Amino acid sequence: MIKDIPEISLQRLPVYLNYLKSLPEGDKYISSGAIAAALGMGEVLVRKDLAYTNSSGRPKVGYVRAQLIAAIEDYLGCNQKKNAVLVGVGGLGSALLAYGGFSKYGIEIVEAFDSDSKKVGTSVAGKPVRADEDLCDGVAGCGAVLAILAVPASSAQAVCDSLVQAGIKGILNFAPVQLKAPESVVVRNIDVAASLAILASLL
Amino acid sequence: MIKDIPEISLQRLPVYLNYLKSLPEGDKYISSGAIAAALGMGEVLVRKDLAYTNSSGRPKVGYVRAQLIAAIEDYLGCNQKKNAVLVGVGGLGSALLAYGGFSKYGIEIVEAFDSDSKKVGTSVAGKPVRADEDLCDGVAGCGAVLAILAVPASSAQAVCDSLVQAGIKGILNFAPVQLKAPESVVVRNIDVAASLAILASLL
Repeated sequence: MIKDIPEISLQRLPVYLNYLKSLPEGDKYISSGAIAAALGMGEVLVRKDLAYTNSSGRPKVGYVRAQLIAAIEDYLGCNQKKNAVLVGVGGLGSALLAYGGFSKYGIEIVEAFDSDSKKVGTSVAGKPVRADEDLCDGVAGCGAVLAILAVPASSAQAVCDSLVQAGIKGILNFAPVQLKAPESVVVRNIDVAASLAILASLL
Repeated sequence: MIKDIPEISLQRLPVYLNYLKSLPEGDKYISSGAIAAALGMGEVLVRKDLAYTNSSGRPKVGYVRAQLIAAIEDYLGCNQKKNAVLVGVGGLGSALLAYGGFSKYGIEIVEAFDSDSKKVGTSVAGKPVRADEDLCDGVAGCGAVLAILAVPASSAQAVCDSLVQAGIKGILNFAPVQLKAPESVVVRNIDVAASLAILASLL
């Protein structure tokens, strides 16, 4: 799926989606101005972002809300089921396994992996926990292309290498370390502590 | 603390910091070129980012690693102790309370709050869990200016309002909803499911 949308615009699409879905059922139409005001953005930016999904509002009426939701969901691939695996069943990993928020994007975490033999063979939030050594088989078996990496920084690169070898194409990395991966693999990082530190720097 | 650094550069400072700290103790010097190569960035960008911390490398030698680490830590305020509170002691909230990664930025989560009376009065990872109603007192008592919001989307705005009223100046919000807060309060969002969906769209 190659898209010409800038990543910064892509990042805002879920924000629009969440907002549009939060409106009362009776709200049939919504204008770009109303969206912009509610989200504290500029109206031109909103229109430009939404145009990437082939949505355009009608003058004086705005967007048909249900159609706009459908267009964003379609653009984000919410209707295409995608399997993900998770590596590192610690506190964060366990919380993510139990989190129900992925399904609205068509994503399901189907299997988890951990290096701790005490965790292997158990299940967390209904998801089986397998040994790290089974990663290749597991990924192949469930056809996952996405992985969440929730291991300590010290083992993150090794797990990343295994994920790449197993055929994973996208990695969401929570370890505070910059991973090396082939260009064909997309890695994005969430560093919670750094995010809070940056926030503190802005005060 | 008002800084003229672009937020995008600020966001990269923890990445440099983690990398510099991960190098062997014996590495006294490091060049901008080596940093750039290791992190997959451009060398000019690296030099520009690091210049905000008043660090500059010497020709042919580079930066003194320990000095560069100190300069970044100083810039990010790692040596100034900052208290934070957390609201929403669910799976994610509990994981964050137990996470040790905040301390390297001088941040400590000192208290947690939850609306569930079964959780109130317990402690999670050594942090006391208090009732949501105690938020104002709690924030005043510990002098926190930072808050982590890990409640469901449906109650996030109400909790945000309470945090603002309690004097919190920076909120890291994990609920998939755009919060309304006064301009004097900095809100940043981490939407894990949306991040994974965006990653999937990039494949």
